[in-house]
Amino acid sequence: MTVNVVDVEDAGDPRLDDFRDLNSVDRRPDLPTGRGLVIAEGVLVVQRMLASRFSPHALLGTARRLEELRADLQGTAIPYYRVDATLMAEVVGFHLNRGVLAAARRPGELTPAAVVENARTLAVLEGVNDHENLGSIFRNAAGLGVDGVVFGAGCADPLYRRAVRVSMGHALLVPFAKAQCWPADLTMLREKGFRLLAMTPDAAAASLASAMTELAGDRVAILVGAEGPGLTETTMRASDVRVRIPMARGTDSLNVATAAALAFYERARCHG
Amino acid sequence: MTVNVVDVEDAGDPRLDDFRDLNSVDRRPDLPTGRGLVIAEGVLVVQRMLASRFSPHALLGTARRLEELRADLQGTAIPYYRVDATLMAEVVGFHLNRGVLAAARRPGELTPAAVVENARTLAVLEGVNDHENLGSIFRNAAGLGVDGVVFGAGCADPLYRRAVRVSMGHALLVPFAKAQCWPADLTMLREKGFRLLAMTPDAAAASLASAMTELAGDRVAILVGAEGPGLTETTMRASDVRVRIPMARGTDSLNVATAAALAFYERARCHG
Repeated sequence: MTVNVVDVEDAGDPRLDDFRDLNSVDRRPDLPTGRGLVIAEGVLVVQRMLASRFSPHALLGTARRLEELRADLQGTAIPYYRVDATLMAEVVGFHLNRGVLAAARRPGELTPAAVVENARTLAVLEGVNDHENLGSIFRNAAGLGVDGVVFGAGCADPLYRRAVRVSMGHALLVPFAKAQCWPADLTMLREKGFRLLAMTPDAAAASLASAMTELAGDRVAILVGAEGPGLTETTMRASDVRVRIPMARGTDSLNVATAAALAFYERARCHG
Repeated sequence: MTVNVVDVEDAGDPRLDDFRDLNSVDRRPDLPTGRGLVIAEGVLVVQRMLASRFSPHALLGTARRLEELRADLQGTAIPYYRVDATLMAEVVGFHLNRGVLAAARRPGELTPAAVVENARTLAVLEGVNDHENLGSIFRNAAGLGVDGVVFGAGCADPLYRRAVRVSMGHALLVPFAKAQCWPADLTMLREKGFRLLAMTPDAAAASLASAMTELAGDRVAILVGAEGPGLTETTMRASDVRVRIPMARGTDSLNVATAAALAFYERARCHG
């Protein structure tokens, strides 16, 4: 069993094109090089990509990172383009401390029905358009036992490079799907027995602890809106229970990923 | 009652020096212009600065932001240097969406004894050297009812511009102090009746929920270390209880500010 190591010494080598000028590609995902690729950065995230349904077709990295990944790559045919750090920076367009990248083409998207199938706890996001917050939500979902994520309207792409990095690779592992009809798909969740909890700063809403305690035996979908606007009124009306995080006097809100983490935590606390 | 509005049309005006080239100042806080100034960005954070012990001595902003702040500035003598967005960008060194800045000199630091005095719940940080995480911790502390923050060794400056911004200004409002002798100052906390809870991923530690429930009637200090290394072993040994957040299988850790938020939330949940 070996690893498919390919030494490259020319920054212009076309085999490295999927890793070229990543910052520009991030700004222009509509360009041919930007379309459809998922990029993992760093040993840990690359390992998670290898364990996910996003099979990388190529890796680019230093000799040191190859050694850290050698066991994970044994017996696969994926080429590891081994370069020095200077050449890597030239290709990528900036110095990458993490020293290794993997690129995967996007497989077909999961359907909401598939994501929901065996889930006990879901996160449902609306208008969450910040990649860092999205990444954090996936990391929190993975750590706190959320089984899947459903995207309503107005959300950013969780497979964007920055989101994948901030998620620590969990955006590749926690199943997610886009709602096909929003917010009508919430009815599908309810038909499958999910209770829909809408997060709101509204002081008249039930506290997170009391709502989650009451629903401990049920399937639960936690609905979270963007920081600032929150959930739309239409979505609020489509939910079963409005829940709030008890906040200290003189404060208004928490970061959306933090608020989601508290809800996930409370769910795990009650649901065990 | 009026506002001290000063129209400025020359980017070189020395009265704007405290707002000049902020990104370079951030990189070189040792330079004369970088020393000792606390900068608030945006209407909300400026309002919080005005309500804090960090009294601004000058503001720089657009006409639009002046109107949003007019009521807060009524009757104060603080000059508001009114400029257009282009001149503001030229002075600051980049375009600032938030449209207004306030600068304050640093008052004397609070002592740990003063911060601890009437606190029921404290956050104690060790090695938290990322400004964004520090800012998030202050925002979470304010929102979830933590009374003060004590800094052990190895922490970054919570008054750095980015930390203040991410904290939504709460770094200016939640009292904090540097430990004078670390970790010996933990003894002082214990003498004042605080129970010291050390956050750890160790599976042998008590769960957050059970530890906090048991200590609901006590003063509590929540000890948090940097992501990755966590608390030092010395600090761990100086604590009373090791507590962990129950994590889902296959995951390792949460972001440090998120982990802190869960502890603050659980404390508020138990302590009421």
